[in-house]
Amino acid sequence: MQYTYLLIHGSWHDGRAWNDVAKILRNQGLDVHTPPIAGHGPHADYRASHADCVDSIVEYVRQHNLKNLVVLGHSFGGTIVQRLAEIESSRIKRLIFHNAFVLRDGESLYDMYPPIFHEIWEKITIDNKIMLPFEIFRELFIGDVELEKAKEVYDNFWSPCCAASHYDKVPLKTFESLSIPRSIIYASTDNALPVGEYGWHPKFSNRLNIYRFTELPGSHEVLFSNPQKLTECIIHASRP
Amino acid sequence: MQYTYLLIHGSWHDGRAWNDVAKILRNQGLDVHTPPIAGHGPHADYRASHADCVDSIVEYVRQHNLKNLVVLGHSFGGTIVQRLAEIESSRIKRLIFHNAFVLRDGESLYDMYPPIFHEIWEKITIDNKIMLPFEIFRELFIGDVELEKAKEVYDNFWSPCCAASHYDKVPLKTFESLSIPRSIIYASTDNALPVGEYGWHPKFSNRLNIYRFTELPGSHEVLFSNPQKLTECIIHASRP
Amino acid sequence: MQYTYLLIHGSWHDGRAWNDVAKILRNQGLDVHTPPIAGHGPHADYRASHADCVDSIVEYVRQHNLKNLVVLGHSFGGTIVQRLAEIESSRIKRLIFHNAFVLRDGESLYDMYPPIFHEIWEKITIDNKIMLPFEIFRELFIGDVELEKAKEVYDNFWSPCCAASHYDKVPLKTFESLSIPRSIIYASTDNALPVGEYGWHPKFSNRLNIYRFTELPGSHEVLFSNPQKLTECIIHASRP
Repeated sequence: MQYTYLLIHGSWHDGRAWNDVAKILRNQGLDVHTPPIAGHGPHADYRASHADCVDSIVEYVRQHNLKNLVVLGHSFGGTIVQRLAEIESSRIKRLIFHNAFVLRDGESLYDMYPPIFHEIWEKITIDNKIMLPFEIFRELFIGDVELEKAKEVYDNFWSPCCAASHYDKVPLKTFESLSIPRSIIYASTDNALPVGEYGWHPKFSNRLNIYRFTELPGSHEVLFSNPQKLTECIIHASRP
Repeated sequence: MQYTYLLIHGSWHDGRAWNDVAKILRNQGLDVHTPPIAGHGPHADYRASHADCVDSIVEYVRQHNLKNLVVLGHSFGGTIVQRLAEIESSRIKRLIFHNAFVLRDGESLYDMYPPIFHEIWEKITIDNKIMLPFEIFRELFIGDVELEKAKEVYDNFWSPCCAASHYDKVPLKTFESLSIPRSIIYASTDNALPVGEYGWHPKFSNRLNIYRFTELPGSHEVLFSNPQKLTECIIHASRP
Repeated sequence: MQYTYLLIHGSWHDGRAWNDVAKILRNQGLDVHTPPIAGHGPHADYRASHADCVDSIVEYVRQHNLKNLVVLGHSFGGTIVQRLAEIESSRIKRLIFHNAFVLRDGESLYDMYPPIFHEIWEKITIDNKIMLPFEIFRELFIGDVELEKAKEVYDNFWSPCCAASHYDKVPLKTFESLSIPRSIIYASTDNALPVGEYGWHPKFSNRLNIYRFTELPGSHEVLFSNPQKLTECIIHASRP
């Protein structure tokens, strides 16, 4: 029995971030869902809370009655995967965290940031929205492509996200007790979070205790810079 | 003058773990030895102590009068390499530690484990034996192959090991003062030990002070998942 | 408008260390400069101070009226890049640190070394000069080539360096306030500094705050062992 793939995007993205990856997975005959999270995308209502973000995905899963799920979260999407796993665990066969946050009960994304991000966030949070400037996007998020490609991604697939998704403390009372198998896919040249003390790996990976580990070269936006290799990792990370 | 290669297997393995690697090395005309360690293998006497493990290899080396040795230890095998180097240093030209423990005087493998392993080990240590369940083997030790291959390795090449090999404190009075050249071969997607504070690298590597460093992608069981690439690393790690 | 590339060598090297890399860059039509640093090279005056090292490069840049610069520092060369950026910031478009030191105001290279290096440095600092023995060079700096190649590099391109370049405290009052874009190129199997607490990455990388990250396999001397791949990284690290 094949799994159904539910891909959860990160901040400043919406479901279209998965276009390339989803196409490759579908060409292999797989069922793939890439719903947008509330408060994300060019025309979203940015007053959404983190709970609203979670609700939008829970509702999607219930409406489509998705089962046998492999749920992958990228970046901020990791926190949605965690909450979905708490609420709809019986629908899920495996969790995959791809350069993603793994929070503990009561933490926010903002709590995970290094001091320099706190300074930057003060400037880029306006009217319930956070928008990351192109210069930072280029250097920290997508250094592994030509400038033209970076601009194309930023202009067409990058938009503000609801501020509360970064600032709200996330309740995660039962996540640690769940026994759903989990995998890490780590794009190893990602420095969207600084490598080391504040970095994606191994800090967040080790919060999963027992996990399968997969690595590929690539930036935080490897879903755009190398969707083929990322898709191979998704297959490896989710095979039984 | 060519080196003789002595390959020391890890826990839950016996000498057959090296079948693929040894074949590739022998095809290059090299002399390769892969003795089993006491207390390891399907029909072993699991009452063996760590000292018995060491003695079985020391005896093998003396009986075969092995000289000009490159001695490689995988995982638990690192501790055997350390003791052999103390006892038979004049026979050895280079030590190689491949995702292996490097202990200090009086430490045990168990002392190196993260708290979650201590919980697991309590459940899997029975009658002088430790046996790792397939589910943990699959996720932590060999995530880089298809399920079928993982099962084949587990069914044919995986067996209990003597409990004392993990719990005994190992005397290592002189290892730090030895000047035998040493190399690290690090399979970089190995999370059999959690990456970071408790991980193979750089924790154990740095205990060697001056060492040559070689890296390959692969899990803890890369000797099964990619013996060709591992063999290339062994050649690079041991060349003068 | 194309950048001009200024490549700053490390300790025990002189400008000829860049021969292979510069040739590949020039074959792409790029303007490349590889000046020797004072106190470095086979026939240098080893009484040079760190300030003399800096002055020699500042003078070179002014004499050739170099502009639109990408300045890359390898190893010790990172400290020269830092000082040049303070003194001639308007000439520079991007800084690249390749397995390089990034010092803070008042630190010396020596301050960055692990205790074992302090012991070794005591023995290899003689008459204002430091010379690293072949055995350490082979194991720590260039483990990724055949012995013959290692010897060829050591015999032809390796020479003493002025001791003061390692021991002088370097004044860096304004470096942290500079906003010149910066990149890291990390040769990931380099253990010339021990990986981890005292290692190149992420310790020195994170001192740059916002930076673009590029990685390649290779030793500290990847400029000799894989100049083709290093050059690709230089192009990626410096593209707009």
